[in-house]
Amino acid sequence: MKKLLLAKIKRGDNIYGTCISSFSPLWSKGAKNAKLDFVFLDTEHIPLERMEVANLCQLYSALGIAPIVRIPSPEPILACQMIDAGAEGVLAPYIENRQQVKELVGALKYRPLKGEKLQEVLESPAVLKPDLKEYLANYNQGNICLINIESMPAFEKLDELLNVSGVDAVFIGPHDLSVSMGIPEQYDHPEFEKVVQFVIQRCRERNVAVGIHFSETPDRQIRWVKEGANIVMHSSDIAIFSQQLLKDINRIRESCGEETNRSSEDLIV
Amino acid sequence: MKKLLLAKIKRGDNIYGTCISSFSPLWSKGAKNAKLDFVFLDTEHIPLERMEVANLCQLYSALGIAPIVRIPSPEPILACQMIDAGAEGVLAPYIENRQQVKELVGALKYRPLKGEKLQEVLESPAVLKPDLKEYLANYNQGNICLINIESMPAFEKLDELLNVSGVDAVFIGPHDLSVSMGIPEQYDHPEFEKVVQFVIQRCRERNVAVGIHFSETPDRQIRWVKEGANIVMHSSDIAIFSQQLLKDINRIRESCGEETNRSSEDLIV
Amino acid sequence: MKKLLLAKIKRGDNIYGTCISSFSPLWSKGAKNAKLDFVFLDTEHIPLERMEVANLCQLYSALGIAPIVRIPSPEPILACQMIDAGAEGVLAPYIENRQQVKELVGALKYRPLKGEKLQEVLESPAVLKPDLKEYLANYNQGNICLINIESMPAFEKLDELLNVSGVDAVFIGPHDLSVSMGIPEQYDHPEFEKVVQFVIQRCRERNVAVGIHFSETPDRQIRWVKEGANIVMHSSDIAIFSQQLLKDINRIRESCGEETNRSSEDLIV
Amino acid sequence: MKKLLLAKIKRGDNIYGTCISSFSPLWSKGAKNAKLDFVFLDTEHIPLERMEVANLCQLYSALGIAPIVRIPSPEPILACQMIDAGAEGVLAPYIENRQQVKELVGALKYRPLKGEKLQEVLESPAVLKPDLKEYLANYNQGNICLINIESMPAFEKLDELLNVSGVDAVFIGPHDLSVSMGIPEQYDHPEFEKVVQFVIQRCRERNVAVGIHFSETPDRQIRWVKEGANIVMHSSDIAIFSQQLLKDINRIRESCGEETNRSSEDLIV
Amino acid sequence: MKKLLLAKIKRGDNIYGTCISSFSPLWSKGAKNAKLDFVFLDTEHIPLERMEVANLCQLYSALGIAPIVRIPSPEPILACQMIDAGAEGVLAPYIENRQQVKELVGALKYRPLKGEKLQEVLESPAVLKPDLKEYLANYNQGNICLINIESMPAFEKLDELLNVSGVDAVFIGPHDLSVSMGIPEQYDHPEFEKVVQFVIQRCRERNVAVGIHFSETPDRQIRWVKEGANIVMHSSDIAIFSQQLLKDINRIRESCGEETNRSSEDLIV
Amino acid sequence: MKKLLLAKIKRGDNIYGTCISSFSPLWSKGAKNAKLDFVFLDTEHIPLERMEVANLCQLYSALGIAPIVRIPSPEPILACQMIDAGAEGVLAPYIENRQQVKELVGALKYRPLKGEKLQEVLESPAVLKPDLKEYLANYNQGNICLINIESMPAFEKLDELLNVSGVDAVFIGPHDLSVSMGIPEQYDHPEFEKVVQFVIQRCRERNVAVGIHFSETPDRQIRWVKEGANIVMHSSDIAIFSQQLLKDINRIRESCGEETNRSSEDLIV
Repeated sequence: MKKLLLAKIKRGDNIYGTCISSFSPLWSKGAKNAKLDFVFLDTEHIPLERMEVANLCQLYSALGIAPIVRIPSPEPILACQMIDAGAEGVLAPYIENRQQVKELVGALKYRPLKGEKLQEVLESPAVLKPDLKEYLANYNQGNICLINIESMPAFEKLDELLNVSGVDAVFIGPHDLSVSMGIPEQYDHPEFEKVVQFVIQRCRERNVAVGIHFSETPDRQIRWVKEGANIVMHSSDIAIFSQQLLKDINRIRESCGEETNRSSEDLIV
Repeated sequence: MKKLLLAKIKRGDNIYGTCISSFSPLWSKGAKNAKLDFVFLDTEHIPLERMEVANLCQLYSALGIAPIVRIPSPEPILACQMIDAGAEGVLAPYIENRQQVKELVGALKYRPLKGEKLQEVLESPAVLKPDLKEYLANYNQGNICLINIESMPAFEKLDELLNVSGVDAVFIGPHDLSVSMGIPEQYDHPEFEKVVQFVIQRCRERNVAVGIHFSETPDRQIRWVKEGANIVMHSSDIAIFSQQLLKDINRIRESCGEETNRSSEDLIV
Repeated sequence: MKKLLLAKIKRGDNIYGTCISSFSPLWSKGAKNAKLDFVFLDTEHIPLERMEVANLCQLYSALGIAPIVRIPSPEPILACQMIDAGAEGVLAPYIENRQQVKELVGALKYRPLKGEKLQEVLESPAVLKPDLKEYLANYNQGNICLINIESMPAFEKLDELLNVSGVDAVFIGPHDLSVSMGIPEQYDHPEFEKVVQFVIQRCRERNVAVGIHFSETPDRQIRWVKEGANIVMHSSDIAIFSQQLLKDINRIRESCGEETNRSSEDLIV
Repeated sequence: MKKLLLAKIKRGDNIYGTCISSFSPLWSKGAKNAKLDFVFLDTEHIPLERMEVANLCQLYSALGIAPIVRIPSPEPILACQMIDAGAEGVLAPYIENRQQVKELVGALKYRPLKGEKLQEVLESPAVLKPDLKEYLANYNQGNICLINIESMPAFEKLDELLNVSGVDAVFIGPHDLSVSMGIPEQYDHPEFEKVVQFVIQRCRERNVAVGIHFSETPDRQIRWVKEGANIVMHSSDIAIFSQQLLKDINRIRESCGEETNRSSEDLIV
Repeated sequence: MKKLLLAKIKRGDNIYGTCISSFSPLWSKGAKNAKLDFVFLDTEHIPLERMEVANLCQLYSALGIAPIVRIPSPEPILACQMIDAGAEGVLAPYIENRQQVKELVGALKYRPLKGEKLQEVLESPAVLKPDLKEYLANYNQGNICLINIESMPAFEKLDELLNVSGVDAVFIGPHDLSVSMGIPEQYDHPEFEKVVQFVIQRCRERNVAVGIHFSETPDRQIRWVKEGANIVMHSSDIAIFSQQLLKDINRIRESCGEETNRSSEDLIV
Repeated sequence: MKKLLLAKIKRGDNIYGTCISSFSPLWSKGAKNAKLDFVFLDTEHIPLERMEVANLCQLYSALGIAPIVRIPSPEPILACQMIDAGAEGVLAPYIENRQQVKELVGALKYRPLKGEKLQEVLESPAVLKPDLKEYLANYNQGNICLINIESMPAFEKLDELLNVSGVDAVFIGPHDLSVSMGIPEQYDHPEFEKVVQFVIQRCRERNVAVGIHFSETPDRQIRWVKEGANIVMHSSDIAIFSQQLLKDINRIRESCGEETNRSSEDLIV
């Protein structure tokens, strides 16, 4: 199973995915039918164990759909475990400083180096001898390093964070970002839009892929792709199901003359 | 956790549900938000183990959403195991003869009687002494006996099957039924519609609740509720998610000027 | 792991056990500390999967505590699967006829013979050539065949059932038996006591071990051991925990001057 | 599922619970029958995965029994994951300094704030603008922050720890505390009692709920409730079962004239 | 995931596989590296649940390695469940009569027909109208029907069994067969060899693929391929590991001058 | 279950083990038949959950085979959790400084002490009063503290690391070590051999047991035992199976005149 997604985003192609939280293997048919490029497995918020992550990574990978896993915190050992389990990309949440990014790059691009030697290499990559450099490049080929930009401190240090060599992609986290901005869940707020626009622009300028994860209608994705985002990270199985179920049941109830609960249709899971 | 759904369908109320195949407990939020009356767990086609069924039954039951479980074949021991696991109703597939129905009723209404004594009671319920009769009625209070009508032989013997005392509800299985009729998946075929109409009518005449399980748009449900069905058994988590994901991704792709795969949007999972 | 329990019950020793439904491996400490001879795993009523049964059988067996598994119905293939999983004994529920017993013996004492050849051997064991007979005896050494006597029809055919060569032990099922007698849960009823006494006596006369499974206080076990039962099948983890928790919490609440719920202390889980 | 326990302990009511380590959903009947206010899930010592914790939290919560989860170490991300899984309260073990408490409060009362912004808010809560403050209060409504006091250093800094705004309750850990005092497991030692008494008094003075977790007879709980504890954290399923099983089996063995093992009846699991 | 193995065996190609009992997804690398055509999952003897079978089937299938599942007994519903889970082929054990084979074919080639209509079709396939026939052929395309020949009664009725239209392949079960012949485990016995030879020959004459499952050295497979077998069903993960581990450890121990246990190296797991 | 392996390695005996990644309980037969002293469970690289680790530890321990668990990073809480789950030994990866070793020793030899008091004891063990010292020694009896030496910085500080009182054994990690040396996977390189030799010698001089983990042929183990290693940590179930399967299938294919893939036989999983 070659890891092919990295090449795709390096070329600047749009890629399409959703967040999967159900670990039934039969679920994969939906993803395959929609010809997704990747699935997103979120171990920060969803109680997915390593074994389930491994099962899902191996399966989606065999189907040609790249598994990207969010780890609960930006610890290098967690990133390594996800690669061992079969992840193609690893996303670290709430990145706010350069040291976090460097350690994540260390885990994803210099495995199995660790400890003092790795710190040395991260400080001055030039110390790596060509043989070892090539070995590590092969060993880690195709691994994708993704970071979450989801707070104002991150926004303010964006250039510094993107400057770390090895960052391949950015996921903008709208919920945490809006809270950090003091305008919780106001995704149409002009300040919010300005920040997102800026992040997208800066990423694309440096050939870093970028997307924003909304659990809402496709319009949000369309909007931001038009602004330059090239990762479409659309909703999740649980949100799509819950929102559509509610709409369908409401429609049936109405047709049958029963009361419904339209007000909760905007629910974001 | 009182079992309350039986009283509801005995009153002739409409009840609403969907098929759940994901066993994440967080999934229950969608069902709760849509104010479902029941969830349907299909162990005939979906690889759900007894332990997962027990987890789901206990959870949905605690949330006030009645769990109805389809067993893979109409064996009484399977029905008993599902009640032990917390099911409120048990559905047996592809019922075609009176003996199957009687044994299912035996399992759901006369537990823990089994063997020769149960056969005797099923032949002539009058042999039950009042004390034991009352004990068994309490012991099995609220258990719902559902049968699948999904073949022409079943259709032809419908009265005979519904005559067995203790049948509470009928689920029509459109896929198997259409195959059995020689018109596979032609759900708009006049012959198919006639058969469905007849089953619904006969059931409601005898105060047997009735519904039909489609994994398609709400229109199918609306149509048949208007014809008298009072069980709305609408789609499944996997179908709703897969169909809607495809539509959403296609819409985004189109807006981005990419090719899509509209033809497969009718997919029924 | 030699299977040693059979020899013990053949000598007529008393053996001690409880029903375990928790599949945490740490649970085994309680069973070990109480120096149990066996644990009882009930796959008829408890949603234990084959994998969990295998985990528990291998663990308890390694600890020198014989695992006895009840299968949901007296089907030979289920008995074979439990032996494959590591069970030392297999209990079949609600036995009422000679054919069921013979097939169970076939599964437990003549594995891997099956089909026509096994039927032939069960009809006339003499057809087995000495070599094969010895091979099968070794292959199945230590396997224990247990049957549930838990209905009046079973009681009436007791001799016939015990006559089948290969039955090693009887578990009396008091709940089902009392229901079958029309005196549900009246375990002090003289008729109930007479039946139990008779079964115990008949079993011991034929060197068949016998016990009765109560989820109540130890007195019930003491009573019947004094009448000749040599299997102490005392309660279950879930019943012991639930009953004692209620007593403890009630005592604490009372001491704190709060209301309690003494009436439900008799609860039998 | 509203989170109601916090209001109860804020009123100073007594609350009752036990530690549950079995993850069978059927186990919940015992807790429900005893009308427990909460169950305690200990992921520090018991191998419970996130998925099982989520299953148990969702189930107990739906039954109106608040799930409180101990995390293995006082890391904020672990606290957040347990809230995501459905916990109502999170207990952090072996708290010894103010910074640990502040970060725990951050995780439980200011989600989804993290990183630099959260540190700033924890230093000077006044920086929070009213809108955001209200949003966060709603978002985290009912979350309970519990800390373990189980060492002499913690005891010595008790006021400092309790001074952190947001601490709702204290669990005293008698085993670790007695070891830290150099008098391991001597729970009747006057020094031990003095320390416990002091902690209870100080907590209640500040309207912080407090309890002590013993896996022994109810007397320990009664004793400390009389001294002011208002959380009854009584034993665990595994301890209650193991202790009572041993007593029962010993009683049966004695009545049958067999040797027993009374000495180990004091066992604390 | 197209099902391609059936076409391969219909062409008479040799196919290669092993039995997999470990359900770690990482295990698949070994199978892939050996370029296996199929893996064999044995739910008769190995405690694999439906969920694990589904996980393994979906994964191996996505890797282009066809999953073949043995069901515990030749019941049609079990065959259907395995196809639902993703199996490409289903093997039924200990087949001894024509009715068993017909029902298995019914499950694998005429799904979703069941009940009376299916019985009718199995009696006289000509009753199937062309439209429905084509629908069913598409619906079941690539499903492989395999039967176990592992007893003398089966051997004696071989022609009758192979005559049922729809049987695609035969697995010879050497252990059960040798026991049924009264020469247990004597796989070099001339009588045993004669029977195997005959079965292979008859199968190949009718274009039915055939193989024999040994958990021993490759020589057994080579021998029988040379006699005409075209399915290489070589050993299992558990046997290969156990046998090779013992050899390796023995070799190391010997080199270190320690005692070893050579006698058990022949062990067949 | 007494923990006996520590005494054995303190005597300087050779001990034999393999790495187990399959969590089927039936797998244990292979380990038992090879009379292993220990099994190695690697939670750093293999997705084994705590529950599976607990199952495996309890089972192997009951079989008299000591479970040694590698934790993903040298955090004391992880070591404690593995002991709680039943591990006899805990291995921490990539140790490079004295503080890591001291904290690991703290977790394994001074449980349940933690926090400030433990730091104090680790600085100056003499502060422990005799009573508490004895209590802790009993409480932690038989726990084995193992460290991974797998980098040049570790090699350079070897004496300093081994000087920490409480280190019982060293596992050399050849892959990481060779990468750290800039000669990846060159296990026959003279520099590599010199380093290994030195580590073995130093460990044995201080009565610290030592071994090196290869997933290759037994020769590697024999070589290093002859140089003084007394822990034989030979391969893994997944490597033994994958390597031998490939050899066997290649041999069969060759005998059948088909192409094979000899070049990949050296694969190291």
